[in-house]
Amino acid sequence: MRAVVYQEPFSVAVEDVDDARMQDPTDVVIRVTSTAICGSDLHMYEGRTGAEPGIVFGHENMGIVEEVGPGVAKLQQGDRIVLPFNVACGFCKNCEAGNTAFCLTVNPGFGGGAYGYVNMGPYTGGQAEYLRVPFADFNALKLPPGDEHETDFAMLADIFPTGYHATEMAEVTRGDTVAVYGAGPVGLMAAYSCMLRGAAKTFVVDKVGNRLSLAEEIGAIPVNFDEVDPVEFITEHTSGDGTDKGIDAVGYQATVSESDEEQPAIVLNNLIYTVRATGKIGTVGLYVPADPGAPSDEAKEGRLLIEIGKFFEKGLRMGTGQANVKRYNRQLRDLIIAGRASPSFVVSKELPLDEAPEAYERFDKREEGYSKVVLHPQPA
Amino acid sequence: MRAVVYQEPFSVAVEDVDDARMQDPTDVVIRVTSTAICGSDLHMYEGRTGAEPGIVFGHENMGIVEEVGPGVAKLQQGDRIVLPFNVACGFCKNCEAGNTAFCLTVNPGFGGGAYGYVNMGPYTGGQAEYLRVPFADFNALKLPPGDEHETDFAMLADIFPTGYHATEMAEVTRGDTVAVYGAGPVGLMAAYSCMLRGAAKTFVVDKVGNRLSLAEEIGAIPVNFDEVDPVEFITEHTSGDGTDKGIDAVGYQATVSESDEEQPAIVLNNLIYTVRATGKIGTVGLYVPADPGAPSDEAKEGRLLIEIGKFFEKGLRMGTGQANVKRYNRQLRDLIIAGRASPSFVVSKELPLDEAPEAYERFDKREEGYSKVVLHPQPA
Amino acid sequence: MRAVVYQEPFSVAVEDVDDARMQDPTDVVIRVTSTAICGSDLHMYEGRTGAEPGIVFGHENMGIVEEVGPGVAKLQQGDRIVLPFNVACGFCKNCEAGNTAFCLTVNPGFGGGAYGYVNMGPYTGGQAEYLRVPFADFNALKLPPGDEHETDFAMLADIFPTGYHATEMAEVTRGDTVAVYGAGPVGLMAAYSCMLRGAAKTFVVDKVGNRLSLAEEIGAIPVNFDEVDPVEFITEHTSGDGTDKGIDAVGYQATVSESDEEQPAIVLNNLIYTVRATGKIGTVGLYVPADPGAPSDEAKEGRLLIEIGKFFEKGLRMGTGQANVKRYNRQLRDLIIAGRASPSFVVSKELPLDEAPEAYERFDKREEGYSKVVLHPQPA
Amino acid sequence: MRAVVYQEPFSVAVEDVDDARMQDPTDVVIRVTSTAICGSDLHMYEGRTGAEPGIVFGHENMGIVEEVGPGVAKLQQGDRIVLPFNVACGFCKNCEAGNTAFCLTVNPGFGGGAYGYVNMGPYTGGQAEYLRVPFADFNALKLPPGDEHETDFAMLADIFPTGYHATEMAEVTRGDTVAVYGAGPVGLMAAYSCMLRGAAKTFVVDKVGNRLSLAEEIGAIPVNFDEVDPVEFITEHTSGDGTDKGIDAVGYQATVSESDEEQPAIVLNNLIYTVRATGKIGTVGLYVPADPGAPSDEAKEGRLLIEIGKFFEKGLRMGTGQANVKRYNRQLRDLIIAGRASPSFVVSKELPLDEAPEAYERFDKREEGYSKVVLHPQPA
Repeated sequence: MRAVVYQEPFSVAVEDVDDARMQDPTDVVIRVTSTAICGSDLHMYEGRTGAEPGIVFGHENMGIVEEVGPGVAKLQQGDRIVLPFNVACGFCKNCEAGNTAFCLTVNPGFGGGAYGYVNMGPYTGGQAEYLRVPFADFNALKLPPGDEHETDFAMLADIFPTGYHATEMAEVTRGDTVAVYGAGPVGLMAAYSCMLRGAAKTFVVDKVGNRLSLAEEIGAIPVNFDEVDPVEFITEHTSGDGTDKGIDAVGYQATVSESDEEQPAIVLNNLIYTVRATGKIGTVGLYVPADPGAPSDEAKEGRLLIEIGKFFEKGLRMGTGQANVKRYNRQLRDLIIAGRASPSFVVSKELPLDEAPEAYERFDKREEGYSKVVLHPQPA
Repeated sequence: MRAVVYQEPFSVAVEDVDDARMQDPTDVVIRVTSTAICGSDLHMYEGRTGAEPGIVFGHENMGIVEEVGPGVAKLQQGDRIVLPFNVACGFCKNCEAGNTAFCLTVNPGFGGGAYGYVNMGPYTGGQAEYLRVPFADFNALKLPPGDEHETDFAMLADIFPTGYHATEMAEVTRGDTVAVYGAGPVGLMAAYSCMLRGAAKTFVVDKVGNRLSLAEEIGAIPVNFDEVDPVEFITEHTSGDGTDKGIDAVGYQATVSESDEEQPAIVLNNLIYTVRATGKIGTVGLYVPADPGAPSDEAKEGRLLIEIGKFFEKGLRMGTGQANVKRYNRQLRDLIIAGRASPSFVVSKELPLDEAPEAYERFDKREEGYSKVVLHPQPA
Repeated sequence: MRAVVYQEPFSVAVEDVDDARMQDPTDVVIRVTSTAICGSDLHMYEGRTGAEPGIVFGHENMGIVEEVGPGVAKLQQGDRIVLPFNVACGFCKNCEAGNTAFCLTVNPGFGGGAYGYVNMGPYTGGQAEYLRVPFADFNALKLPPGDEHETDFAMLADIFPTGYHATEMAEVTRGDTVAVYGAGPVGLMAAYSCMLRGAAKTFVVDKVGNRLSLAEEIGAIPVNFDEVDPVEFITEHTSGDGTDKGIDAVGYQATVSESDEEQPAIVLNNLIYTVRATGKIGTVGLYVPADPGAPSDEAKEGRLLIEIGKFFEKGLRMGTGQANVKRYNRQLRDLIIAGRASPSFVVSKELPLDEAPEAYERFDKREEGYSKVVLHPQPA
Repeated sequence: MRAVVYQEPFSVAVEDVDDARMQDPTDVVIRVTSTAICGSDLHMYEGRTGAEPGIVFGHENMGIVEEVGPGVAKLQQGDRIVLPFNVACGFCKNCEAGNTAFCLTVNPGFGGGAYGYVNMGPYTGGQAEYLRVPFADFNALKLPPGDEHETDFAMLADIFPTGYHATEMAEVTRGDTVAVYGAGPVGLMAAYSCMLRGAAKTFVVDKVGNRLSLAEEIGAIPVNFDEVDPVEFITEHTSGDGTDKGIDAVGYQATVSESDEEQPAIVLNNLIYTVRATGKIGTVGLYVPADPGAPSDEAKEGRLLIEIGKFFEKGLRMGTGQANVKRYNRQLRDLIIAGRASPSFVVSKELPLDEAPEAYERFDKREEGYSKVVLHPQPA
């Protein structure tokens, strides 16, 4: 089958690889109709991880069931399904508690598995014609047959639930004011989730114009940190109080205005000043325990200077970590089906599989129109 | 009236001061029957705060209502009451949400008020014969008449609810394993609260023998960090998993083994390694945004090097801040009345008001028998 | 001052009565700018309660502070405020737990107080030029100065929070399907709250055309029970499953199709069949322990034949009771201010105080245009 | 293999039946070391259900894994496991939400499956030498090897989680007063769970002396309804307030004092009077939609006269239904392992499989010593 294969830093190719195939009675194999390129794929693409050449990328996958293992009860050939990026077993202590991003079974010794990602277990990626899905009854979310809402549903694999996860950890509720740092696809999904939860005012902080425009279109208040100090601006626009809740959709590769210098703790520390006392912060922007390219020795080992004195004084609370996609994807799917959510507004381009190498290259250069690409290896 | 008055660093005296008196129609004045000395009083005592000479100490207060303002509906002369250390109004946004430690009314410009504490508003302390109680209907918790459970009830002003607050933020529940760092009065109250909540295994980390003995007596597992590495020990005794929940009852004045050198972030960072992925941390040990005596320039401004990469990778959550005493004191009082809780096991000595100066001196030197002193300015 | 005074069944008059005046240091007096007529006022109007002639009606009140007691800290003359229909103290066990509808102080021996309502304590109604507000700091919700959003804010006194309360008890969340029985003002507010909470599909059951039209306008699916069996219809439109959640906004005066015969348990029992197993029901439609006009001896004493076997088999849960308005009014106010909620769409007419007698008469006859009347005794 | 087989009303026999065997790749077969007789088995035994002769009883099962299907990932031969009485799939909408008692897969058209129970799906009972376990990864809870805590662990299959479920639905928390109606095994487990949750005062209502003695031994307050009116007694012993929470562990076969006449609604209605306004009720005592032996026509169809007027006036909330055992069994197991819970105090007798017929007969006659029998078909 054809698949997107990592070659070396800044290079992927579409090549013939071994077909995805059944390994366990609880597997299914799908033909992939949609698979999105994610910002976190760029970490591997840029060579900032230990990813080896030959790995097939792709953790935002959906498609049609082609083969069904004898231990699968829920699915039949022809079913249309979307997969959480996290591979999970469904029966370990963490899965039982709904923490499927931290499954103890699929990637022993390291909580959590994913398709097509370095260190996330032996699961091949879905930027390919076919994909093996382990523990298929548990991992698959069934979709209505046909091709309606294809790109909306594709967002259920990762970024819509990930944005929503941030609002869940921040406990965003009716009437809240919220500050979302980062207007990439995940930040926009977080802001969109704030709307669905009934927030009163949602600020979105970024410096890229078309991202901020999208934020404004969904009803958020754009804050360009190249033009204003975001803490000051938001404080002023919340009667001097700061927001009830805050969301970090940026992570450790945060940069400061103008210079583009990386300051890994700047978003977290800005949030500590942006959110009012007793507020809650949801962090889905990535922080890592080892980052060889970091600007300081401490940051290389994942230690950052955090304004913990202020954090405590304000009685803040913070939740972090990768999204437990399965906890949210059913309800978000139902909103899409009912016509009450349409997350595909973040998708900038849809392409056949063969155009993946160019898409990676342009996405990596942050070219306009490549901010969120969905590949279609097979017809829906 | 007689009161404990701060003189200069390392010196308090019992002196005659102006009588506590009514200021607002919603006040009461009580005669103080019990008032405890708190570890946080030592910050002022040691001159590490901006406290000016003349301030009357005491924020853990209970007594008998002596005078009642015309705007008070709940209380009558002779009622026995205990006061949360936090002074709160009952009607601001934060009080309405139960966050009485962050009352916006009583100490404008700075969330939260307290009796007898620097920067916590104009409320005189209760280590005195009488005490004015503002917003008395809201702040007073009524107790059964008489003198039964006097020292148990005195613990409701601060340390029992504060320890409980930590377990609430960490969401300690039935069957949990919990690591409590710090076996001072608050740490012990946190461990005791773990028992009341049905934790399966509670580890308590400290290096002071008699504190660890108390922890063991209430059913916790003592861990002496002078003898073992607490992270390793607890990991090993939880089948290599780490604990479900963690509590920081130490704060920024944490020291390392042997040297007694201060390492302000060591407890937080140890917790990040002690608690398993998806775990929750409740922090009631104090962190401050300004600490002139801190060991580094960053720490002087409340910035500490936190293992945020590991924190995120494990998907940890953390709550912080001073306890909203009023949220818990009613239910904890009812456990005392029913004979199902007796927090006074942490009280090491009860003394008349006049012996306060000696008690402060010995407590500050960590002399045995002075770890938790309750003063009785007036007969119960 | 002028006020709406109950004369005898089916008759109110606007008369001169004693001025509202300060009684306690914690009171304020407001001049009333808006006060709505509520469906529950009709119970008294129709003589189906023990209300005595002379009582001043009106529990949905807002206005401008005129006089301020010396024990009031939050309010000043000229402040614009809206009052929950429940009068509450702020410091009893129930108020502390947020259950202000069941305040133990304001109406001893019977949980809960209200303005202008029989058996709800000594609090005169607000369908008058002035109104005394007890425990004013706790009961008043401050509004922005001016006259903007006047009728939206007036809905915060009762029906918007009451509708919202139903969705809170039913735990309506993103992606849910919900069945709301009753499209009167409260049912419409419940359906509107479902939208704010991100429900996927909200069914609204009634038989009055213009009510159903309003439901449809806000995005709900109207179900006319004169035309279809609501249980069958909703089951069919939820793939045979039934809804996730259900709301009873009708109560004991429910009638069946065609005959208009009262069947007090029909809505509850329909909900038990409409909601799927594990579902949750929020009941804000009134049920009473004594109803002399009820169609059976048991119903006269508040006992109804409930499908409890089916209820248990399906593992249903139900919450009931009057809304704790104060728990929700702040966040709903903030949605109005932010332009994200506008509950005044249910208001059918605004009138001066003098037209109250005619408004009552026409409302009682269910004349079109009188379904929700707001009176304006004084200029805003 | 040998198994307890239903013959006709009031008769079971131990007979040879077909061996339990693997059917699906996700199955395991265990040899049964412990299997308890449940009060609900008596409904079938007494012929009050549609159970056909030949059915093998037994839904409270534990044992040692003997055979493992190729689609099973968690279990190995020799593993010691306990099974929830509910059979569940782990991937349907209800299982995903933790509502495993209402699994939509295992018993289509009727939410929820169980071993050895009429209408609960095709799952043979475990009062036998061997038992087939479907969806084994999801249903099995692993236990420490050996035979320690054998009868404690056996309680995890049903009654301990069921009692706990009642306290979860009633939201029993620290400091609460609770009224538990019924001191059979489930009622005692509910009271025991109240203790684990930190209730201040737990009343247990029954009329059987040795049940009440057991309640007293675990720290509850026994209330003999043959001697006192339970509503009056409990109201008086809660300062006239009633309890914060209530639990129904009796169900529709409730009888009144003296006469033993069945009054199916008496416990629910007593609870409505026993619990204070704003209180919460957890109902695990069984109510059924069809009961041919009921004392009235309505009751035969599961409709009971409920004090719904009083229920609403007090703003009560109620949760009902069979326990989702899997939601609680892990944490309760950990309490047993840690030595902090020992639910086997309710076990009155342990017997070999062959004595099952006599045990059923004596249990059905409510003979002392047969209130909770555990059978041991195989050695542990």
